[in-house]
Amino acid sequence: MPDKKERKDISIDVKEYHTPSSGIFFKASRQLYKQDSPYQRIEVIQNEHFGRVLLLDGLVQTTEKDEFFYHEMLVHPALQVHPSPQNLLIIGGGDGGVLKEILRYPIKSVCLVEIDPLVIDVSKEYFPWLSSSLDDERSELIIADGREFVRKTDRKFDVAIIDSSDPVGPSVSLHERNFFSHIKECLNEDGIVVGQAGSPFFFLDSIKKKNDFLRTLFRIVRFYSSPVPTYPGGIWAFFYISDRVQPLKIKGSPPGNLKFYNSGIHQAAFSLPNFFKEMLD
Amino acid sequence: MPDKKERKDISIDVKEYHTPSSGIFFKASRQLYKQDSPYQRIEVIQNEHFGRVLLLDGLVQTTEKDEFFYHEMLVHPALQVHPSPQNLLIIGGGDGGVLKEILRYPIKSVCLVEIDPLVIDVSKEYFPWLSSSLDDERSELIIADGREFVRKTDRKFDVAIIDSSDPVGPSVSLHERNFFSHIKECLNEDGIVVGQAGSPFFFLDSIKKKNDFLRTLFRIVRFYSSPVPTYPGGIWAFFYISDRVQPLKIKGSPPGNLKFYNSGIHQAAFSLPNFFKEMLD
Repeated sequence: MPDKKERKDISIDVKEYHTPSSGIFFKASRQLYKQDSPYQRIEVIQNEHFGRVLLLDGLVQTTEKDEFFYHEMLVHPALQVHPSPQNLLIIGGGDGGVLKEILRYPIKSVCLVEIDPLVIDVSKEYFPWLSSSLDDERSELIIADGREFVRKTDRKFDVAIIDSSDPVGPSVSLHERNFFSHIKECLNEDGIVVGQAGSPFFFLDSIKKKNDFLRTLFRIVRFYSSPVPTYPGGIWAFFYISDRVQPLKIKGSPPGNLKFYNSGIHQAAFSLPNFFKEMLD
Repeated sequence: MPDKKERKDISIDVKEYHTPSSGIFFKASRQLYKQDSPYQRIEVIQNEHFGRVLLLDGLVQTTEKDEFFYHEMLVHPALQVHPSPQNLLIIGGGDGGVLKEILRYPIKSVCLVEIDPLVIDVSKEYFPWLSSSLDDERSELIIADGREFVRKTDRKFDVAIIDSSDPVGPSVSLHERNFFSHIKECLNEDGIVVGQAGSPFFFLDSIKKKNDFLRTLFRIVRFYSSPVPTYPGGIWAFFYISDRVQPLKIKGSPPGNLKFYNSGIHQAAFSLPNFFKEMLD
């Protein structure tokens, strides 16, 4: 029997099914973390190409290599069109990636509401380049159910970012009409809400459903899309909702050192392919 | 021993590695075809979600479900900006998908040069909705090495589409400077060449190399990108080269019944994310 110290890291195949018969796989050179919280299974693996990969309930949330595709496109479109973003809200986003992008702006405060404290702990340990944003003095962390938070709070925000996981597990309620009717009450006059809306290639029906009920709540409801290499179908959808602020009138210039977002990409993201556009009409 | 008639189709996992440690997988409910030609291994599988999937040397070339993402974006940008596309050339594209899109226009002739006749035969058998375009009276099929064809022919074309596989196997020469210097000689004054240029997420170095040598040959060298769900990284790059025709001035309207392309998508595709744009400067 070999000594434990000599045991090598074994190669583990991590598979995420995008349909019952297809998906993406990663070879894990190391499994760094695996634990069930009261809400979900949290895993961190090390992959040779993508670096650290965070999975919740077996679904890829973020990777070291491609996190900027998603986080930049979730944050900068709204912050580039809002006339004066001062107080911000993030629902979910416990890895800190959205927070990091928001803190590039001279905002006053940002409140991050995450249901699962273990996601925060794991991110602090394994994704410090994202989670160090939690130490910024403008950041406030609240451990709570996002739905309950928006239902009860008296605070008002300029921009709210919904960085939910997919509508399975603890994020189900963040995809329902009820949640959006409450978040509307937490917005200042020029308020904007953006969030991830899933894969338009695989989940177009759920996007259509969301579009339909959002239109009953907000004057401006738009979807935009952008690629995320490790998300199902490669192309990802985001919703943009507001009662007053149009999504295409950019104010000023984006922060420096962005790897993905620029003003051309902003306009481009709102141009949707026919199969997606026609589903929303 | 069970009677052969009772034998069920077994489930086969088809894996395409995008890096040595990650990739995409499909469960094949049936393997419909598998044969080595003198040039490459040709496989067709049936997948529950994607329908029929064509693989060359183990790399996904096209699927029933998402072929339009790729074929529409390879054809319509060039055909929408050329002042009068009459005689066209396709190098590769033996599945017929590019040809099908070209035939939506009132062109005079289109010449398809495919090196591997077995790809044509397999497409006729398993992808008739693409390959039936070969029966159109405007189509001419030439079985030849694309590099040799462009070196020897006296014919001139308005638009050439390079629908090559990746730079491994029989397509290597279609990614080299020499090929592009010969194809330049086959173009009419307003000639345009477009082609697939690989994944900007995984293969940015080879795109940069191509950009560098194309700039020594053509006055206008641009790259555009668009998602293809089953290609590595989800986002795909295409090159657009011409000596006279700018890529953003659209003439007229696109054909009806397209599932992906529209004029907004055309402009959007040429807006590149920072990590891609900066590599080309």
